[in-house]
Amino acid sequence: MILKTNRKSLVEQVAEQIEQLIEQKHWKVGDKLPPEMELIEEFDVSRNTLREAVRALVHAGLLETKQGSGTIVRSTSALDAALKRHVKKSTMLETLEVRLALEKQAAQMAAERRTESDLIDLEVCINNCKEASAKKDLEQFISSDIQFHKTVVAASNNQLLIDLYENMTEVLFSFVQDFMTIEPLFPFEQGIHLELFKAIQKQNKESAAAYVENDMEVLKESIIKILKE
Amino acid sequence: MILKTNRKSLVEQVAEQIEQLIEQKHWKVGDKLPPEMELIEEFDVSRNTLREAVRALVHAGLLETKQGSGTIVRSTSALDAALKRHVKKSTMLETLEVRLALEKQAAQMAAERRTESDLIDLEVCINNCKEASAKKDLEQFISSDIQFHKTVVAASNNQLLIDLYENMTEVLFSFVQDFMTIEPLFPFEQGIHLELFKAIQKQNKESAAAYVENDMEVLKESIIKILKE
Repeated sequence: MILKTNRKSLVEQVAEQIEQLIEQKHWKVGDKLPPEMELIEEFDVSRNTLREAVRALVHAGLLETKQGSGTIVRSTSALDAALKRHVKKSTMLETLEVRLALEKQAAQMAAERRTESDLIDLEVCINNCKEASAKKDLEQFISSDIQFHKTVVAASNNQLLIDLYENMTEVLFSFVQDFMTIEPLFPFEQGIHLELFKAIQKQNKESAAAYVENDMEVLKESIIKILKE
Repeated sequence: MILKTNRKSLVEQVAEQIEQLIEQKHWKVGDKLPPEMELIEEFDVSRNTLREAVRALVHAGLLETKQGSGTIVRSTSALDAALKRHVKKSTMLETLEVRLALEKQAAQMAAERRTESDLIDLEVCINNCKEASAKKDLEQFISSDIQFHKTVVAASNNQLLIDLYENMTEVLFSFVQDFMTIEPLFPFEQGIHLELFKAIQKQNKESAAAYVENDMEVLKESIIKILKE
């Protein structure tokens, strides 16, 4: 039997494979790709083909080539790279409004669908926040707080929403982080998010959504205040 | 004065320029790029450089090269291409939930921020729906309905949200379109969306959000019903 020839170019095949390996976390953000010679052998292609595939992925924002230091993974997926570039062109408040949209919907869905294991994960985050707050450890507090928000979204059980939220909020989180480090304006307190946890636990959609709305309103006002100063 | 050399490769510069021309709608989706010889002259690069740039954009999903018919524009931006690929991997219901999140937030913001000219645009869409409904012109009805939803989102005045919505909903709209053509299950009626229009006009955020939630719930149930059959 004669098989149809593969119409995808070799370059395209190599680029797709590298992209998949990144998406499957075989290579993570910050990782250096193996030496060129090794990749040439593994993919069984010419140096030119490999280089062109790498350049295509550099263009897409997945890889970065630095002279002297090899090729580094920059994004977890093409969507991640494109969203990051897009979010960078947006204002902080635009991004915050989109975050509110996603997180509010996620909180409602989490209230509906949360499993026992989601509740355990959320409790761990809340306890970490509490512990950090008692120790006045700002760094741990911020990372536990971010983890809490991500865990709420994960409990929505909607992978598209989870991916969008993850990629969309990275820039925002790093901003909040920067600016809490300078001046911890936000409720750096023991009972943070307990109310949202309870709403999700009791499967109360309305109060979960109301909590997120209010939480984001506070954040928005603080950001507006800072930006004005 | 010695200027820093431009570290971006020629290929990267050409790819970026083509991408910008597409984003600025100089070339639209479905358009054929000018002949290779013309582009080589305009960009003042070699054939190899141009071809590699085109291949990078093919990989990103912005262009498509078809043997014998030249190079066609496939997406309006890298974000558009990446989102489309991602949405295709998601289920219809996942996509619908994300659409609900974005559209609900947009309706609330539209109620807050709508200008007189937004209200005029929304009225045009509603009148087109009404007219199509009277004529029983399903095709016009569907396109006016989609236009109405997009106009609500545009009135949010948040460009990030508008872009996400636009790219995210294309797949969903085409599904709804297919399936209304077979069996018009949805409220194919004269007064459609009048309630949402009034809420936005009166700047009533809560009832704008409630309308979208209810509208999407009806759509979701219909989709679930169809998928089960």
